[in-house]
Amino acid sequence: MTSADTLHGVIPYLASPVDAAGEIDRDALARLTEHLIGKGVHGLAPLGSTGEFAYLDLAKREAVVQTVVEAAAGRVPVIAGVAATTTADAVAQTRRWREIGADGILAILEAYFPLNDAGVEAYFTAIADAADAPVTLYTNPNFQRADLSLPVVERLSHHGNIRYLKDASTNTGQLLSVLNRCEGRLGVFAASSHITAAVMLIGGLGWMAGPSCVAPEQSVRLYDLCRAGDWAGAMALQRDLWSLNEAFARYNLAAAIKAGLRLQGFDCGDPLPPQRRLEPDEIAGIAAALERCGTL
Amino acid sequence: MTSADTLHGVIPYLASPVDAAGEIDRDALARLTEHLIGKGVHGLAPLGSTGEFAYLDLAKREAVVQTVVEAAAGRVPVIAGVAATTTADAVAQTRRWREIGADGILAILEAYFPLNDAGVEAYFTAIADAADAPVTLYTNPNFQRADLSLPVVERLSHHGNIRYLKDASTNTGQLLSVLNRCEGRLGVFAASSHITAAVMLIGGLGWMAGPSCVAPEQSVRLYDLCRAGDWAGAMALQRDLWSLNEAFARYNLAAAIKAGLRLQGFDCGDPLPPQRRLEPDEIAGIAAALERCGTL
Amino acid sequence: MTSADTLHGVIPYLASPVDAAGEIDRDALARLTEHLIGKGVHGLAPLGSTGEFAYLDLAKREAVVQTVVEAAAGRVPVIAGVAATTTADAVAQTRRWREIGADGILAILEAYFPLNDAGVEAYFTAIADAADAPVTLYTNPNFQRADLSLPVVERLSHHGNIRYLKDASTNTGQLLSVLNRCEGRLGVFAASSHITAAVMLIGGLGWMAGPSCVAPEQSVRLYDLCRAGDWAGAMALQRDLWSLNEAFARYNLAAAIKAGLRLQGFDCGDPLPPQRRLEPDEIAGIAAALERCGTL
Amino acid sequence: MTSADTLHGVIPYLASPVDAAGEIDRDALARLTEHLIGKGVHGLAPLGSTGEFAYLDLAKREAVVQTVVEAAAGRVPVIAGVAATTTADAVAQTRRWREIGADGILAILEAYFPLNDAGVEAYFTAIADAADAPVTLYTNPNFQRADLSLPVVERLSHHGNIRYLKDASTNTGQLLSVLNRCEGRLGVFAASSHITAAVMLIGGLGWMAGPSCVAPEQSVRLYDLCRAGDWAGAMALQRDLWSLNEAFARYNLAAAIKAGLRLQGFDCGDPLPPQRRLEPDEIAGIAAALERCGTL
Repeated sequence: MTSADTLHGVIPYLASPVDAAGEIDRDALARLTEHLIGKGVHGLAPLGSTGEFAYLDLAKREAVVQTVVEAAAGRVPVIAGVAATTTADAVAQTRRWREIGADGILAILEAYFPLNDAGVEAYFTAIADAADAPVTLYTNPNFQRADLSLPVVERLSHHGNIRYLKDASTNTGQLLSVLNRCEGRLGVFAASSHITAAVMLIGGLGWMAGPSCVAPEQSVRLYDLCRAGDWAGAMALQRDLWSLNEAFARYNLAAAIKAGLRLQGFDCGDPLPPQRRLEPDEIAGIAAALERCGTL
Repeated sequence: MTSADTLHGVIPYLASPVDAAGEIDRDALARLTEHLIGKGVHGLAPLGSTGEFAYLDLAKREAVVQTVVEAAAGRVPVIAGVAATTTADAVAQTRRWREIGADGILAILEAYFPLNDAGVEAYFTAIADAADAPVTLYTNPNFQRADLSLPVVERLSHHGNIRYLKDASTNTGQLLSVLNRCEGRLGVFAASSHITAAVMLIGGLGWMAGPSCVAPEQSVRLYDLCRAGDWAGAMALQRDLWSLNEAFARYNLAAAIKAGLRLQGFDCGDPLPPQRRLEPDEIAGIAAALERCGTL
Repeated sequence: MTSADTLHGVIPYLASPVDAAGEIDRDALARLTEHLIGKGVHGLAPLGSTGEFAYLDLAKREAVVQTVVEAAAGRVPVIAGVAATTTADAVAQTRRWREIGADGILAILEAYFPLNDAGVEAYFTAIADAADAPVTLYTNPNFQRADLSLPVVERLSHHGNIRYLKDASTNTGQLLSVLNRCEGRLGVFAASSHITAAVMLIGGLGWMAGPSCVAPEQSVRLYDLCRAGDWAGAMALQRDLWSLNEAFARYNLAAAIKAGLRLQGFDCGDPLPPQRRLEPDEIAGIAAALERCGTL
Repeated sequence: MTSADTLHGVIPYLASPVDAAGEIDRDALARLTEHLIGKGVHGLAPLGSTGEFAYLDLAKREAVVQTVVEAAAGRVPVIAGVAATTTADAVAQTRRWREIGADGILAILEAYFPLNDAGVEAYFTAIADAADAPVTLYTNPNFQRADLSLPVVERLSHHGNIRYLKDASTNTGQLLSVLNRCEGRLGVFAASSHITAAVMLIGGLGWMAGPSCVAPEQSVRLYDLCRAGDWAGAMALQRDLWSLNEAFARYNLAAAIKAGLRLQGFDCGDPLPPQRRLEPDEIAGIAAALERCGTL
């Protein structure tokens, strides 16, 4: 049976395919899941930022998790995103994703009014208490209104279920600070805003990121090179892959991933309005980056 | 019959009372509505920031609007908050609030990924098309991830249903810039971050703000003094009321309003966790401000 | 003899004219001084932001103060800008401007590394100790790296020489908070980012601002209308003048003022490079705003 | 003869020692220079942020450069900081530092009003034209008001004298983006905000940073391990050194370096007021970090 007890490697942040009516396209999502597992990814993370969690109601989020869990069929761990403004909603989502079969939880805090550290800590602790499975803290100062301070991360790392942290800032040094304080209790994953080889160098476990959806094979190869200590080989590959991260950072992330997947033959629909699909010249930029990585 | 065609004056942003289980306390909300109408307010705005819209699911939001519409019983216009990340959700809320009997819509954009001006314009236009009633644009650069630029406001002001703008920045000059571009098409309301007498001076219609929940009588008096051109009298009163706005800005706005209402005998419960209720010394600060205004 | 003991009214932030070699054009500055005094301004403020203090070395700054003091010849108070990163430099500038004959000091803090409140307080206290004349605190969160918190302003207001505050934020409410804490000890002046009529309404003494250089007559008229309590008349004029402030906020402030003065026949040269002079279409925008105000 | 044509390795950002009167303590600076060269550093960078350039007038800056050039006596290249708001000042500093004997220039832009890309490019181009020696671009979005965009860096990299870039953001990925665009033309150095081993991994030449003043031997060892491809050894040392960077980031950087140097027996005085010296408990934090690195 899969579990999230030894999470590592390449864990794509899945796009959430939708049909023309805005409903979750379960077939496309199942095909994408199958495709990525076939390429050797080590886990799957539905309902991250790339997965447009912020644009999906609870029924749609449940459809996403259920589809991925069923399609993965225990071959790789599924780490499902929980995101809410209230503790009660977060706990309800956590319980539901676990009932459906998610192996672990990616915990996201959506704040409207500012929160103090005690409020942030209480929110994540409540998720961890409810999860009965490994929880990954998600820090993203760019798009979220609350951030986890180092002291809060340190305190949370003592919770038995809080096992990983995925950071979507651009501050790679912050991850070394987390490791210096919490190593042994908290494993660290990169996001697409970090150079993943650099995060592997400092002791990271891998990465949870949207671009891995469109370059799974190359991502796994990069991970293997890092694990083997072949840093020169890793950096040669990393530089090509970084142009992909750059292209995706330039646009709305969901729109960019969906454009890339469509170029590769996986039609996942468009990002939900008022988000817009990319313009032809932007799609050409995505195509160029994919070609540089050998994925198109 | 009430309408939002000639909106003006003091329109409190209502707190959303909840019981210990986190459910909407309809009785408390109906009593608050009755109380405020009795004090002479000119309208009511449920589901603004103060009303914790960001912490309430759709069922709870509907309970709030329904309760206020029923309790108001056509005596003053009810302007209900619509807030969503997707256009589809916003349109659905707009239609539902109108079916329930809301006289107007307060339109709020919740973004996760950044939006360009065209996306912002499309979102608000879709609400206005669906509303079949006057729409108030809500700009709040402090808590929301997208803001309306002056050119977008100018373009939206030509839509027949987009009739008002309520600004929650602290930049009072921005309101004069809006009036210089859109007067005759767009009426302007202040939020609690502005000196309301100053906004009346430059041509504002009134204010939509949380603190009016706890000082409705004084707020109406201030509005009347401004309308009568008694600016010296208005400023004397404004200075006392400003200490209330300052006290509320110091803390979580919802927590502060709920603490103030409790001090006045309206128990509305606590802000939804992980937001926290105020500490005793903070409540003392609220009490002092209320006393200065003569509302305690 | 002039003094800054009863500062009030329209106090233009003077542009700093330079010749083609980048040296201070004393003749142009003297002519501008004469012109503004002729139009009835109540004081003159060389070396504010508009005066490009940040781009002038000490010798050039001294040339500016000396020229304005001599040209003013005691007819209106001259409030000279002191700006430094170190306390020692600020004190030296303060002493020198006073020796030269400045009636008061506009105190500006230039920080590189962040400062705590005690450091900010010490800096302004040292200037006030050295000034032997009224000091105006200058707060500008947009362009300066340190800001004065309300508690620091309150503490500084007890210093016998710290008599005024000029705020260049856009947050008009902040000025009412200052008055609520410090009135009687600290008089408040608006900058071009505030609606000056609104600041007069809440109890301000006047304004220190760049745009008054190009609309001195209209500015004095606005001040007189406000003082007479003719708020309707004041607002009619204010709305025209506001379009000037908007035009100037759109560009580099010094470049905009210098372009406006040149249109009026006062050639003050260009802003110091790498700042750029305005392009023709930008100058046309300045011209349109000046025409609306009747100053061109 | 030394040159900056093949700059690499550990280049400490020198503290600027001052005596009780605030004058440059040339003896202390010469001793520090001698000490660091003895420990094997590959170059010296006076007048960086750590060197409090923003707090020193031109005479003091010249004393700093002259002292370091004389004490270094051609044994390692001296890269002197040029920082100004005007192009004219920057060019004058550049010429003077070169006359005095600096081998290269570290180019810093101090802006007050915002600049467009053309203005930024013109400023750095003028320095490079005047330098007749290799120029290092310095990007520091935390303390400086203007930043260099990637397109501007790319364009500047074609100037024959613009040879290096030192980045003081925390965004390590940005450095890989620079290399992807400019490698071969622009060598990249880390600042203390980056994990230096990670920057070496991605192809960096070394680092210019304040903490190297207090851990020169360990810094050189880290550099050698990275160059030798012993990444495991490098990371073991890096983690200890990172605690030093963390301690220094917590406080005013100049105050922290001066406190650390005093603990090591190099009394460099205090940071210039209104900056404050560290409190005893803060000094204890610095001492603990130094002990962890084996430099105390």
